[in-house]
Amino acid sequence: MPPIVSIVGGSDAGKTMLLEKVVRELKTRGYRIGTVKHDAHGFEVDHEGKDSWRHKRAGASTVAISSSKKVAIIKDVETEETLDGLASKYFQDVDIILTEGYKKEDKPKIEVFRSPVHDTLLCKEDEHLVAVVSDTSFNLDVPQFELNDIKGLADFLEKGFLIGL
Amino acid sequence: MPPIVSIVGGSDAGKTMLLEKVVRELKTRGYRIGTVKHDAHGFEVDHEGKDSWRHKRAGASTVAISSSKKVAIIKDVETEETLDGLASKYFQDVDIILTEGYKKEDKPKIEVFRSPVHDTLLCKEDEHLVAVVSDTSFNLDVPQFELNDIKGLADFLEKGFLIGL
Repeated sequence: MPPIVSIVGGSDAGKTMLLEKVVRELKTRGYRIGTVKHDAHGFEVDHEGKDSWRHKRAGASTVAISSSKKVAIIKDVETEETLDGLASKYFQDVDIILTEGYKKEDKPKIEVFRSPVHDTLLCKEDEHLVAVVSDTSFNLDVPQFELNDIKGLADFLEKGFLIGL
Repeated sequence: MPPIVSIVGGSDAGKTMLLEKVVRELKTRGYRIGTVKHDAHGFEVDHEGKDSWRHKRAGASTVAISSSKKVAIIKDVETEETLDGLASKYFQDVDIILTEGYKKEDKPKIEVFRSPVHDTLLCKEDEHLVAVVSDTSFNLDVPQFELNDIKGLADFLEKGFLIGL
């Protein structure tokens, strides 16, 4: 199974932006990257009126759209998938899985923190916290990176989770 | 592996509409249904600007969005998935897979034909043709159903592919 690392942080911490930058950097280094977005509110991926959308609305529990370039799957679940479940079913062909959110799971976590937006680190007491990306510094035993130090963060991921594992 | 049956037909034959009705009918009868839409032109499932869309654009080869109700997966492929490949990877938990399109694959096919729109039956010579749904009748050895005979078509699918298999 590919290693899983979660990018966590409060609202407006810039998790998506950081994830985008890290994905770009790791891709440049030749890795195949999977991402998982945790959705708590219910989401709509397909476009209303499309054939696949109509299949789903009619009652199909799993809908696939397949072309020569990509595949999309939309599947009902009875209970939320764990990260390990997702990894084993859908991510066998990537080198690393980066998640946005999933602070309650037990995967290694990198917390993004911006002092103008947040008061306290979410995962200060979390034994799975492996790094912090922030505009300030904390009295903590984990590596800390500046918000724009994408190369440093990619090095950290590469050394810790990609090389020789 | 669940049985796979393809709904085929020319443009504007009403494949999606027939598929919707059959899905509804089979679901009412208690079956779990998967569907596959063949896409020849390239498709966009996700919504521009969404976090998952941003992950994919940044270069992730597989993106998942997961909630307590459903999972969506968008995955790059190097060559188009076969129906058997899709079935084994993504459809283990359904009773039947109905596809829209896939007339070139070797799965049992039901052709939808409307005489005002089409001249000839696409799969007349195809040994995998198992039924025709049409506003007209053909000199053929396979069962033929009226366009609105959804119960008849569902009975056919149930007897041929769902019961005792």
